[in-house]
Amino acid sequence: MSQNKQYKVAVVGATGAVGQKIIQYLEEEPFQIETIKPLSSKRSAGKTMKFKGEEVTIEEATPDSFNDIDIAFFSAGGSISERLAQEAVKSGAIVVDNTSAFRMDENVPLVVPEVNEADVKKHQGIIANPNCSTIQMVVALKPIQEAFGLKRVIVSTYQAVSGAGLSAQDELTEQTKQYLNGEEMVANILPAGSDKKHYPIAFNALPQIDVFDDNGYTKEELKMINETKKIMHEPDLHVAATCVRLPVFTSHSESVYIETDKTDVTVNDIKEVLKSGEGLILEDDPSTQSYPTPLSAADKKEVFVGRVRQDLDTTNGFHLWVVSDNLVKGAAWNTVQIAQSLVKNGLV
Amino acid sequence: MSQNKQYKVAVVGATGAVGQKIIQYLEEEPFQIETIKPLSSKRSAGKTMKFKGEEVTIEEATPDSFNDIDIAFFSAGGSISERLAQEAVKSGAIVVDNTSAFRMDENVPLVVPEVNEADVKKHQGIIANPNCSTIQMVVALKPIQEAFGLKRVIVSTYQAVSGAGLSAQDELTEQTKQYLNGEEMVANILPAGSDKKHYPIAFNALPQIDVFDDNGYTKEELKMINETKKIMHEPDLHVAATCVRLPVFTSHSESVYIETDKTDVTVNDIKEVLKSGEGLILEDDPSTQSYPTPLSAADKKEVFVGRVRQDLDTTNGFHLWVVSDNLVKGAAWNTVQIAQSLVKNGLV
Repeated sequence: MSQNKQYKVAVVGATGAVGQKIIQYLEEEPFQIETIKPLSSKRSAGKTMKFKGEEVTIEEATPDSFNDIDIAFFSAGGSISERLAQEAVKSGAIVVDNTSAFRMDENVPLVVPEVNEADVKKHQGIIANPNCSTIQMVVALKPIQEAFGLKRVIVSTYQAVSGAGLSAQDELTEQTKQYLNGEEMVANILPAGSDKKHYPIAFNALPQIDVFDDNGYTKEELKMINETKKIMHEPDLHVAATCVRLPVFTSHSESVYIETDKTDVTVNDIKEVLKSGEGLILEDDPSTQSYPTPLSAADKKEVFVGRVRQDLDTTNGFHLWVVSDNLVKGAAWNTVQIAQSLVKNGLV
Repeated sequence: MSQNKQYKVAVVGATGAVGQKIIQYLEEEPFQIETIKPLSSKRSAGKTMKFKGEEVTIEEATPDSFNDIDIAFFSAGGSISERLAQEAVKSGAIVVDNTSAFRMDENVPLVVPEVNEADVKKHQGIIANPNCSTIQMVVALKPIQEAFGLKRVIVSTYQAVSGAGLSAQDELTEQTKQYLNGEEMVANILPAGSDKKHYPIAFNALPQIDVFDDNGYTKEELKMINETKKIMHEPDLHVAATCVRLPVFTSHSESVYIETDKTDVTVNDIKEVLKSGEGLILEDDPSTQSYPTPLSAADKKEVFVGRVRQDLDTTNGFHLWVVSDNLVKGAAWNTVQIAQSLVKNGLV
C-alpha cells in the first residue's frame, strides 16, 4: 500500500516485442521492484535475460507461476490470457492484460491513465490495456472532449508492422530485400497470421488488420470503435474507423476527423488544449514543415499531434494527424503506466 | 474530323515518368497517329526513343515546336505549361495539360472522361488533366452521385512516391538500402522538392504532399477539394482531404467517407452502382480477403474499389477504399483518354 513498498512482478510473454519493452520500462523503476519473473512458452523457458544488470532465468508460464506475485503483466496473446489470467488473480496478483481477451468485459476496466485513470479503482483482479491504435487516439481526443465535447470521430489509420509482432517485422525486412533484388516476395504472416491469405506488405498498403467480422469491418476497426466509447465513457459517441497496415516498422499514424459539441471553437482553441494535454506533444507548424512522422515518434512515450486544421465546410469539424510508437505508448508503456496508477492509488 | 483522320501529336516531357507512359499508351493506338514528336528540355534533346518500332529523335521544346501539331500533351511541370501551352494553341494544336497550371482556370475544362466527358466541348484550346488523387476518387464517386446524390466527402490518402517523379522513386530505393545497411538515410526530394526541409520516406509516412498554403492545408489537399467540386459540377459539395505520402512506388490508395443525399441507401445499393460504374472494378469480398492494394492495381487502367461498408452510426454514411495507379489512370491514361474524347467528339 505504501509508496515505498517493493513489488514482485511477473511478465508473461517476456520474449515478445511488447514483453521486452515492458521489462525495459520496469528497469527504469516506475515504482519499486523487488523481483521480476519473466515467463514465456515452454520453447523459451530456461533461457536467461538481464534485468538491471542481473541475470534472470525465463520460466514457462503455468497456472502455478503467480504465487507471491503482486502484479502480472500479460502480453502473450489472447488465448494465453484466457487460460492463465484468472489463475494469476486467484494467486493474489493483479493482472494488467495487454491482449484483447477482456477489453470489452464490463467487469474489466479498460484504462489509458491520461484519459480514465480513476477506472483502475473498479478493478476485480484484471485491468485491460487497450488496442494500440485506440490508445494514441484517445490521448489526443481527451483534452478536446473535456473542453468542447465530442460528437463524432472518423479515423483512417496508417499502422506499423510491429503491431503484428517480431515476425511481421522480419517479414517486412525480407520482402523489402526480395523486392530490391527483383525476386518474388514471400508472404506468410500479414495481413493477419491466422487468416487464410497473405499479401506482401513491402512497398504496399493492406486495408486489413486482424480478421473480418460478419459486418464487413475488421476486428481492428471494431476495437477502435468500441474501445474508444468505453474508455471515454461515451457509449453514444459516433466513431468510424478504417485500419490500414503500412510498410513502416514502428509507430502508428492516424488521420482523425472530429466534430465538437460546441460550435464556436477555433483551430487555435483546439491547439491550446492539445498543447496542455497530458502525455501529448503538439508538433504543428506548417511554416517550418513541423509535424510528427512514424520515424520521428519512434521509441518515444508521448503521443504527437500535428496538421491541426479546421474543416473548410463544417465549423465544428477539425482534422488532426496523430502519431505514436505503438509498442511504447500503444502497448508496453501504457501497461506499465496502469501498474503505476495501481501503486499510486494504493490498490496493490 | 473523321474517325479515320490520322493525328500529329507532340509530347512535352517525353522523358519523364508520365511522358513515357503517355507514349506507351499512344503506341496502343487509342486513335490513329500519323506522327509523334517527343519534346523535352535541352538536356535530353538529341537522344532517340522508339515509337512502334521506329526510332524518333527527341527535340527541345520551344515556342516553334507545335507547327502542324494537332494534339500536344504537356507533362513537364507547371512552369513549362505556363510558358509554352498558349504557344501551342496559337500554332493550332489542342493542348491536353497534365500539370496544375490551368486546372482551376474557368476557361479550361478539367476532365475525367468517365465523369464529365461533355466538358471537352467547352475547350478554348487547353483541356486540363486533374490531379492524380482527384481522378481516381471522382471515378469512384460518379456512379454514387448519379444514383443517390452526394452531400459530403472526407478522404485520407495513401500516396505513392511516383507522383513526385522518377527521382523520388530513386530516393525511396536508395533510402531503403541505406536503412537496411544501418546507414543514415539521405533525403533531398520528398515531401516536396521545392520546399525547405526534406524527410526520409523509407519505412515512414509523410503528412505533406506539395507545399503548404496559408490556411494550413497543403496544395495537394486543396487540389483534391477544389478539383472534385469542379469536375463533379458541385461547387457546394463538402469535401475534406488529408494527403499522406507512403513508401510505395506506385498506385495511390484512398480511405473515403461519403454521405449520400438519399437516406434509404443500403451498402448493396452502393456496391451495385459501383459494379456497373465506368472504368471501375469492384473488388470487395471480406470472406476471401478481396480488396485492392497498391501492388495489385499497379499498371492497370481501372480504378479499384473495396472495403465498402455502411457507417455504423450514420445511415447515409459509407466507407470506401479506392486504389488506382497514379501514373496510369491518375495521369497518362486519363490524358490519352481526353484526347480520345476530342477525337470521338470531332473536336480535333
